[in-house]
Amino acid sequence: MITVGIYGGSGYTGQELMKILIRHDESRVIAVTSRKYKGMPVADVYPIFRGLTEAEYVDASPEDLAGLCDVVFLAVPHGEAMEVAPLFLDSGTKVIDLSADYRLRDINVYESWYKRHTSPHLIDRAVYGLPELYRDDIVGSDLVANPGCYPTGVILGLAPILKESVVDASSIIVDSKSGVSGAGREPSTGSLFCEVNEGFKAYKIGKHRHTPEINQELSVLAGRDVVVTFVPHLIPVNRGILSTSYATLQRETSTGELIDMYKQFYRDEQFVRVADEGMFPNISSVKGSNYCDIGLTLDERTGRVIIVSSIDNLIKGASGQAVQNMNIMCGLPEDTGLKLVPLFP
Amino acid sequence: MITVGIYGGSGYTGQELMKILIRHDESRVIAVTSRKYKGMPVADVYPIFRGLTEAEYVDASPEDLAGLCDVVFLAVPHGEAMEVAPLFLDSGTKVIDLSADYRLRDINVYESWYKRHTSPHLIDRAVYGLPELYRDDIVGSDLVANPGCYPTGVILGLAPILKESVVDASSIIVDSKSGVSGAGREPSTGSLFCEVNEGFKAYKIGKHRHTPEINQELSVLAGRDVVVTFVPHLIPVNRGILSTSYATLQRETSTGELIDMYKQFYRDEQFVRVADEGMFPNISSVKGSNYCDIGLTLDERTGRVIIVSSIDNLIKGASGQAVQNMNIMCGLPEDTGLKLVPLFP
Amino acid sequence: MITVGIYGGSGYTGQELMKILIRHDESRVIAVTSRKYKGMPVADVYPIFRGLTEAEYVDASPEDLAGLCDVVFLAVPHGEAMEVAPLFLDSGTKVIDLSADYRLRDINVYESWYKRHTSPHLIDRAVYGLPELYRDDIVGSDLVANPGCYPTGVILGLAPILKESVVDASSIIVDSKSGVSGAGREPSTGSLFCEVNEGFKAYKIGKHRHTPEINQELSVLAGRDVVVTFVPHLIPVNRGILSTSYATLQRETSTGELIDMYKQFYRDEQFVRVADEGMFPNISSVKGSNYCDIGLTLDERTGRVIIVSSIDNLIKGASGQAVQNMNIMCGLPEDTGLKLVPLFP
Amino acid sequence: MITVGIYGGSGYTGQELMKILIRHDESRVIAVTSRKYKGMPVADVYPIFRGLTEAEYVDASPEDLAGLCDVVFLAVPHGEAMEVAPLFLDSGTKVIDLSADYRLRDINVYESWYKRHTSPHLIDRAVYGLPELYRDDIVGSDLVANPGCYPTGVILGLAPILKESVVDASSIIVDSKSGVSGAGREPSTGSLFCEVNEGFKAYKIGKHRHTPEINQELSVLAGRDVVVTFVPHLIPVNRGILSTSYATLQRETSTGELIDMYKQFYRDEQFVRVADEGMFPNISSVKGSNYCDIGLTLDERTGRVIIVSSIDNLIKGASGQAVQNMNIMCGLPEDTGLKLVPLFP
Repeated sequence: MITVGIYGGSGYTGQELMKILIRHDESRVIAVTSRKYKGMPVADVYPIFRGLTEAEYVDASPEDLAGLCDVVFLAVPHGEAMEVAPLFLDSGTKVIDLSADYRLRDINVYESWYKRHTSPHLIDRAVYGLPELYRDDIVGSDLVANPGCYPTGVILGLAPILKESVVDASSIIVDSKSGVSGAGREPSTGSLFCEVNEGFKAYKIGKHRHTPEINQELSVLAGRDVVVTFVPHLIPVNRGILSTSYATLQRETSTGELIDMYKQFYRDEQFVRVADEGMFPNISSVKGSNYCDIGLTLDERTGRVIIVSSIDNLIKGASGQAVQNMNIMCGLPEDTGLKLVPLFP
Repeated sequence: MITVGIYGGSGYTGQELMKILIRHDESRVIAVTSRKYKGMPVADVYPIFRGLTEAEYVDASPEDLAGLCDVVFLAVPHGEAMEVAPLFLDSGTKVIDLSADYRLRDINVYESWYKRHTSPHLIDRAVYGLPELYRDDIVGSDLVANPGCYPTGVILGLAPILKESVVDASSIIVDSKSGVSGAGREPSTGSLFCEVNEGFKAYKIGKHRHTPEINQELSVLAGRDVVVTFVPHLIPVNRGILSTSYATLQRETSTGELIDMYKQFYRDEQFVRVADEGMFPNISSVKGSNYCDIGLTLDERTGRVIIVSSIDNLIKGASGQAVQNMNIMCGLPEDTGLKLVPLFP
Repeated sequence: MITVGIYGGSGYTGQELMKILIRHDESRVIAVTSRKYKGMPVADVYPIFRGLTEAEYVDASPEDLAGLCDVVFLAVPHGEAMEVAPLFLDSGTKVIDLSADYRLRDINVYESWYKRHTSPHLIDRAVYGLPELYRDDIVGSDLVANPGCYPTGVILGLAPILKESVVDASSIIVDSKSGVSGAGREPSTGSLFCEVNEGFKAYKIGKHRHTPEINQELSVLAGRDVVVTFVPHLIPVNRGILSTSYATLQRETSTGELIDMYKQFYRDEQFVRVADEGMFPNISSVKGSNYCDIGLTLDERTGRVIIVSSIDNLIKGASGQAVQNMNIMCGLPEDTGLKLVPLFP
Repeated sequence: MITVGIYGGSGYTGQELMKILIRHDESRVIAVTSRKYKGMPVADVYPIFRGLTEAEYVDASPEDLAGLCDVVFLAVPHGEAMEVAPLFLDSGTKVIDLSADYRLRDINVYESWYKRHTSPHLIDRAVYGLPELYRDDIVGSDLVANPGCYPTGVILGLAPILKESVVDASSIIVDSKSGVSGAGREPSTGSLFCEVNEGFKAYKIGKHRHTPEINQELSVLAGRDVVVTFVPHLIPVNRGILSTSYATLQRETSTGELIDMYKQFYRDEQFVRVADEGMFPNISSVKGSNYCDIGLTLDERTGRVIIVSSIDNLIKGASGQAVQNMNIMCGLPEDTGLKLVPLFP
C-alpha cells in the first residue's frame, strides 16, 4: 500500500485527487494539507465526500509530511511548488508536481513567463509527465512535472502528425476552449457565475503561460523549433477542454490515412481514443474520465489538417494524469483508480 | 457471474445502466435492445462508451432474451413494460422494471393516472423497490417495481418523520425541482436547449403521475391516508432532483432531535446521508452517485418542519437504484458497482 | 428633463439602472458613483455600454451630488443607505432606496434582522415602493423604499387572494427560486461559476432577511398578522425569480373564479400579467422586462391554492421598479423607459 | 407607417422580428404566418408577447399578403424562400430574405452547397444585405439577401484588413463558436438540453454552408479568390456567435496601427464597436443588441493577426440586421427600432 500526501488539497485539483484516490486500491491518502481550511473535515468543504472520508485538512510542513509519504502530489500554485519539492525529494518522497515549476526545460523560458526559479538544479531531474510520450522516463523518476491542462490535449492531438512530419511545423494554430474549473476556486469577479454564464470570450491571447510548454513539446516532436499561435477561450461549463488545431500539409495524404496513422500511434494507449472518420470529440464524452479523445480531418479546399482533441481538464488535464504518473512510477497497472466511465449527460 | 439484459437501452436510463454495469464485477450485460438503433454500436449513440464496450443494440424479443438472462432491466416506457414483464417472468428471468407499471398497488389508481393495465395479476407479486424500506421483500422477489425519481427522494426525505408521527400527515406539501434528463431523450420542443436554459418553471401542477406513488408510500409510512400537494419544477441542469417538503409539527421537538431521529433511522444505510444541523443538500453533491442526501430544520416561527432531500435522478432515482435492487435480489453486496463518488464540479 | 444620480453604481442593480435610464427620454443621469472604480469609464467595467455612454464613475459625496440631482437612486448595501439618505433629503433630492433600510415599518423588526438603524426618524416618511399597492402614496413621496426582489414577486402573487380573504392567512408557505445575480457582484466562493452551475440548493432556510418584509406586507393585505414559511433556493441562471406559494382555502371557489379575481385585481396594471387557466409563468418569459407574471390553480385533492409568480429580479425586482417609482414620483407616464420586451431565448 | 408581413413567423428569427417590430415606431406588422400554429395567438407560442400583441398566426399565401404589405420578411428555410420571393416582388412588395437563397452570386456554388434554384433570374437583382459594406445598393433595392449569422461577424471582422491588403488572403482560418439558437426551434436530439449543456464540440467541419458565403464576400474585399478554413463549434448558451480569425501578415504593422485602421474603417458605423488595444469581445456584451464587437491583436512571435468578432446571432446575425435593411430600404433612420442596449448578465 503506497502512502500518499496531497500538498495543497483545497482547490479543485486537490479535491479531484481525493476523489480518485478514495477508489484507488493500492494507495492510501494519509494527509491532505490546507492552510485555509486547517482542522476542517474535507467533507465540510466538499460535501461530495460525506460518508466517504473522515479526513481533515492539516497545515503540515513538507518536513512533517515527507517521512510519512511514499508519494506526494503538489497541488499548490507555481512558485510554491519549487520551494517545497526539494524538501520532499531530500527525504526520499517521490514528487508529482501539478504546477508549472518543472515543466519547462529552459530556465530562461520559465523565468520570462513565470518568475525567478528557486530550485533550478532540479529541472533536469524532472520528467515531463505525459505518459503517452515519456512513459519510459517516468518509470524511474522521482520528480514528475505533471503537464498543463491545455498542453495535454494539444500535444496528444498533434504528436503523431508532427512526429511523422506530415505538416509544416511553422503553420500551427491552436484554438482552445476550456471550462471554468481551469480558473481554480479562488474568488474573483471574472469567475463569478453571472460573469461567465451565457458568455464566451477569448482571453490572454498570445500571452497564456501554457504557450511555451506547448512550443517546447511540439519542438521535441517535430525535431525543430515550433512556435504556435495559441488562443484560449472560456466556455460556460464546469469541466473540459476542447482544442481545435490547424496545420498545413506538406505532403499528400488523406483523412483516412491520417486517422490510420493516429490509431497506429496510439494503439497501445488505453486513455487515448481516436475517432473514426467523420466523428469528432465532444467534451461531454470525456467528462469525469481520464480519456483524451481525438478526431481529425483534412480540409481539402485549403490543404489544412484540422485536429480536434478533448479532455477533462481536471482529470487527464491534471489529477487523473497525476495518478497515472504515480501508477507508472510505482509499478502499478497504469489504470489503477482510473477506470472512470465518463458521466453523460 | 450474473447475466443481464437491458430491455430498452437507448434512453438515458438505459445508458446509465450500461455505465454502471460496465464496472459491476459480478454481472455481465449480454444484450441491450433498441428498435431505433438496431445494429448500431452503443458507442456510436453514446460516445462515452468508446473503448469500453463493443456492444451493439439488438432488436430482440423478450422470448429471445429471456433464456439468456438471469436478470432483465425494463427501461421502456410505462405501458410497454407490463406487456413484456410476464414473458420474462414465465421463463424464470428476474425483472426489474424502471417504468411505473407495477408501482401502484391499487389497479384503479394506476388506471386513472396511466392507462388500462394488461397484466394486473402481477401487481401483487411486485415489490416496490426502495431498498431502505422494502429490503427484506426485495431479497426474495423476482419482480421489482423500481421507484420513480421524484418519489425516491421525497419518500426517503419524509419516511422517518411520518413513521414517528411527528407531523400532521394531512399538512404535507412537496415542492420538487428536477434536472432535464428526467424528461428523457425523445426530441420535443419543450426539452430543447434554448427553451430550458436560463428558464425555470413549474409544470404539471397537481397532475404529475408521481403523485399517487408518493401518496401510496407515505400512507404506508403514516399508517393512514396521505394526500400531498406536489408541484414539480424544471431546473436547467442535466441531472439531479431536490425536493423541499413542508409539514406541520404535531408534537414538540427540536431540529437537533429531528436530525438525531433521521440519523438513527438511516444508521445502517450506506446510500442515505443525513446532514448535520445547519447543512442542506445540493444536487451537485450527489451528481454521479447513488446517494440520497437529506437535510432538515424546524421553522420555529411557524411550527413547520422543512426537509430537503436530493438525489441524482438517473442513479438513485433510476438506474443506480435498479442495480441496488439487483444486488439485493441476487445476494450480492448491495454496493457492488455502486461505489460511485459524486462528480463535482 | 429630470436630473438623476446613481449612488453606488458598480453593482448589477447600478448597471441595470444605467441600462434603463440610457433609454429613458425624460431623465438624464448626471453622475454615477463608485469608490472602487473611481475615474474608470462605466463602459470599461460593463462593456455593454461601449458607444452608449461616456460616463465615468466618480467618488462623489452625497453633498456633492445632492445639489445636482432631482432624484437619486441608492444602490448601496443596507446600512450605507440609511447614512446618506438624510443628506439627500435635506437638500431636496428625492430618494429611491434600493436597499432594505426603509422597508420595515417597525424599527425593532429592522434591527433584529439587520442592524442598528441610524436614521429611524425617516422610516415613517418612507413609502413602500410597490406601485401596484401604494401608487397613491408614492406620488407625493420623496423617500421610496424600493421593495426586495423576493417580496416583489411574492406579494404581487398573494395580494388578491389575501385581500379577498380567500385563504387561511396562517397557512402560507412560499418556496422561492432565484437566479444568481441576486447575490450581487462581490467575489465569493459561493457565487463562483463552478460552485453554482449544475447545482441547486436551498439556502438561509427560515432565516432570509426578506421574510419580515413579506410578513409585513402580507399582514397589511390580510388585515391580520401573517407569518409565512419562506425558503429561497438558488437556480443556476443569471436572472429571474419564480416563487411557488401555497395556501389553504377557507371558502369554496374554483380555479376559474380565482383567475378572474386576479385579472380584475390587476386590470389596470400594465406590468402584471395574469395567465389564463392552465398556463404558468416561466422566468424566461419575463427576462429583461419589468413584468410580473402570475399563474394559479386550485389543487382540488388538498384544498390548497398554488400561486406561481415570476419576475426579473434585476428589473421588476430592483432597478425597473425603481424607475417605475421615479416615474410616478415625477409625474411621468409610468412606463417611461420601461417598454422592455422580454428577451427570449 | 410601413406595413410589414413576416412570412414564416414561428421560429426564433420570426419571434425576434416580432420583438423588434413591436417597438419600431415607423412600421406595423399586419400579418405573421405559420402553418403549424395557424389560428394560435403568437403570445401562446411565445409568452413573452402576452400583453404586447393580440396577433395570431395566419396561414396566408404570398398572394394574400402581398397586397397588404410594403415589406415582407421571409423567415422560412432556404428552398422555400426562392419559391415565394417572386410572388411578393411581382406585386410590388419589398422582400428581405433571411434564408440563404439569394446570398450566393454564383448559381453553381449555390446549387452545389444547397439545392436546385427555382428563381435564379432574381439572383442578380438581390443585394447582399450587409449595410456596412453594401449600404448604397440596399437603398434602392427591393430584394435583400440578409446575410448568414456566421458570415456577418466574420466578414465584418476581416473586412478592413482584407480591403487594405494587410494579410495574405490565402492564410485565413476562421474558428467560430455559436450559441444554440442558431440551430432553430425544430425538435431534434442534437439540440436537446442534455445533449448540449455541459458539452462543447465542433460540427460540420469544412462542410458548413456558410463557407461559400464567407469566401464570396472575402473575395470581393480582397479583390482575389479567397478560400478560408472554417470550423464552427457549438457553445452551450442561447445566443451569440464569437469568431476567432487568423491571418498571416504580409507587411509590417503593429496592433495599435491595426486598431486605428479598424476604427477608421468603421468610424461612421453605429452598430460596429472596435475595442481598444488589449480588450476583446465577449458574446455577453452584445446579447440582445444589434452590435458587432471587434477586437484584434498581433501575435508577434508568429506574425499572425488574430481578430475576434462577436454578434448576437438572432439580432445582428438575423432579425436585427433585417430590420436595419428595412430601415435603409425605406428611408428611415437606420437605428429605428434598434436602439437596443445589450442585456447583461
